[in-house]
Amino acid sequence: MIKPEQLLQTLQIEFDKHSYGENPAELYDPIAYIMALGGKRFRPLLTLLATSIYSEDWGKAIKPAMAVEVFHNFTLMHDDIMDRAPLRRGKPTVHEKWNANTAILSGDVMLIRAYDLLLDVPKDKLRLVLARFNQTAAEVCEGQQLDMNFETRWNVTEEEYIGMIRLKTSVLLGFALELGGIIGGADENAIQLLYSAGENMGIGFQLKDDLLDVYGDPTKFGKQVGGDIIANKKTFLLIEALSKAEGTVKAELEKWIEMKTFDNDEKVNAVRNIYETLDIRTFTEQKINAYFAKGLASLNELSIDESRKEPLLQFAQQLVEREK
Amino acid sequence: MIKPEQLLQTLQIEFDKHSYGENPAELYDPIAYIMALGGKRFRPLLTLLATSIYSEDWGKAIKPAMAVEVFHNFTLMHDDIMDRAPLRRGKPTVHEKWNANTAILSGDVMLIRAYDLLLDVPKDKLRLVLARFNQTAAEVCEGQQLDMNFETRWNVTEEEYIGMIRLKTSVLLGFALELGGIIGGADENAIQLLYSAGENMGIGFQLKDDLLDVYGDPTKFGKQVGGDIIANKKTFLLIEALSKAEGTVKAELEKWIEMKTFDNDEKVNAVRNIYETLDIRTFTEQKINAYFAKGLASLNELSIDESRKEPLLQFAQQLVEREK
Repeated sequence: MIKPEQLLQTLQIEFDKHSYGENPAELYDPIAYIMALGGKRFRPLLTLLATSIYSEDWGKAIKPAMAVEVFHNFTLMHDDIMDRAPLRRGKPTVHEKWNANTAILSGDVMLIRAYDLLLDVPKDKLRLVLARFNQTAAEVCEGQQLDMNFETRWNVTEEEYIGMIRLKTSVLLGFALELGGIIGGADENAIQLLYSAGENMGIGFQLKDDLLDVYGDPTKFGKQVGGDIIANKKTFLLIEALSKAEGTVKAELEKWIEMKTFDNDEKVNAVRNIYETLDIRTFTEQKINAYFAKGLASLNELSIDESRKEPLLQFAQQLVEREK
Repeated sequence: MIKPEQLLQTLQIEFDKHSYGENPAELYDPIAYIMALGGKRFRPLLTLLATSIYSEDWGKAIKPAMAVEVFHNFTLMHDDIMDRAPLRRGKPTVHEKWNANTAILSGDVMLIRAYDLLLDVPKDKLRLVLARFNQTAAEVCEGQQLDMNFETRWNVTEEEYIGMIRLKTSVLLGFALELGGIIGGADENAIQLLYSAGENMGIGFQLKDDLLDVYGDPTKFGKQVGGDIIANKKTFLLIEALSKAEGTVKAELEKWIEMKTFDNDEKVNAVRNIYETLDIRTFTEQKINAYFAKGLASLNELSIDESRKEPLLQFAQQLVEREK
């Protein structure tokens, strides 16, 4: 049976030897830089796992799978400018290490290079793949725009928030699986199930991100636990708390949100206590489980020998259980 | 015989009714805005004219032709951020009217929408068209990077400058013609001739832009005549003057370049006089004519009935003679 680790290793070798271009260096060095920062590479892995369900020759999906990862990193490069983020995976962001102009233009070329890698799909699938990718890519931008719009709004509903993370995060996971299915030769029904699996697991994945920021194990979680609370980031937990809190609890929550100077640990503990009072942790965990269950159900519905789905199901389980 | 005006009219109708998306408005309004600012639309016109050489049904090239114009406007939106340009076609640029984040993200979606429009090429041509478009698009970004690099260098050679404008401006004109040929059904040799025609005319076109900035008729030229001189923009004329000037003429030119406060008209007149002394105007005109002649020669080489080439040749002649 294929092991995710084996696919990841092959992907890493391909990424290491891939050239995005060389001259002018100011344009291409930042691409090599952000791609070398690493990341879990789980989007291209999803593509290869989906292809491997339908075809022994998952190798033919490597370049298109890489396209998904290059596209994802393009969005990170541009989002980091917009969010004025100083760090990405613990290293200076491209606009910090170089400048914003460089991050804009290198990002543009990354998007073009993603399209280049996508050209490697079987010729008779090219138009379908590109049409689906174009829709996905535009939706990811729509999600980023909504995320920015939400920054200045305090009445974001749960439904709006889920809609935003669906666009910003989960449609790309849906596409990653769909793409693998298309290349592998899955039928239309299976392709839709794969997309739906990625879409729902993607929402679960982002909600888990929100949860880990508050309740993650500091020894395992890569980022500062509580960072979202410190920054008043409108996560699922904060949105739920804002909608559920009443009376003195609401006043307490608003006090911490509006406070300009505070001790970080004190704020994190105080908001975490409010979340406990309102049962936000349990509620969020239930939501996460529900989305992952829906995603896994789509995978289980695929009418193909169970053993072929096993690697993807196992990996999906890792995503459910992740602690970082 | 087909008239360029007729094709332009059809293009305008298609642009007017085309939707780039609607929600969120912050993302899509800027696209509609920049596309409505107008422009000569001569890139998509080149595509339609090239298709019409080989096929009566030039209508099938409309959407791909529009892709070229949408891509061009995407580069304008992002370049304007990088160049901190306040105005575009006399109106506020997108990053001025909205903000830089909006211009980054709307630009990203425009690039994706350009790819969407390109999908409308005949299925058996799709991979070829996309491979050529990807290369062209990356080259345009390379040209913009070189242009920015040149801003801080005073030893840019003529060869480097021509190399930069080839990438930044002329490869897209080459692609516009090539695309029309591919869609029309031209053979490989003809496709290469069309590309080469666009590439050389594109260089002539940009050099003419540089020339018109200094010697244009203020009643016809759309922008402020002398604007490049006032801003010390490294145009073909300035690069030639810097390389040819010696002794007191060189000192005079450098004095004006280094001067922090000056009367605009005085500086324009002084630098124009230096250009006269060095015969820069004639030299530039000769270069422009040589590139246009080379471009037209490629068109003349196309082995097809002369009458079929006539509309494109006529339009090319208009580009040569333009005064704005």
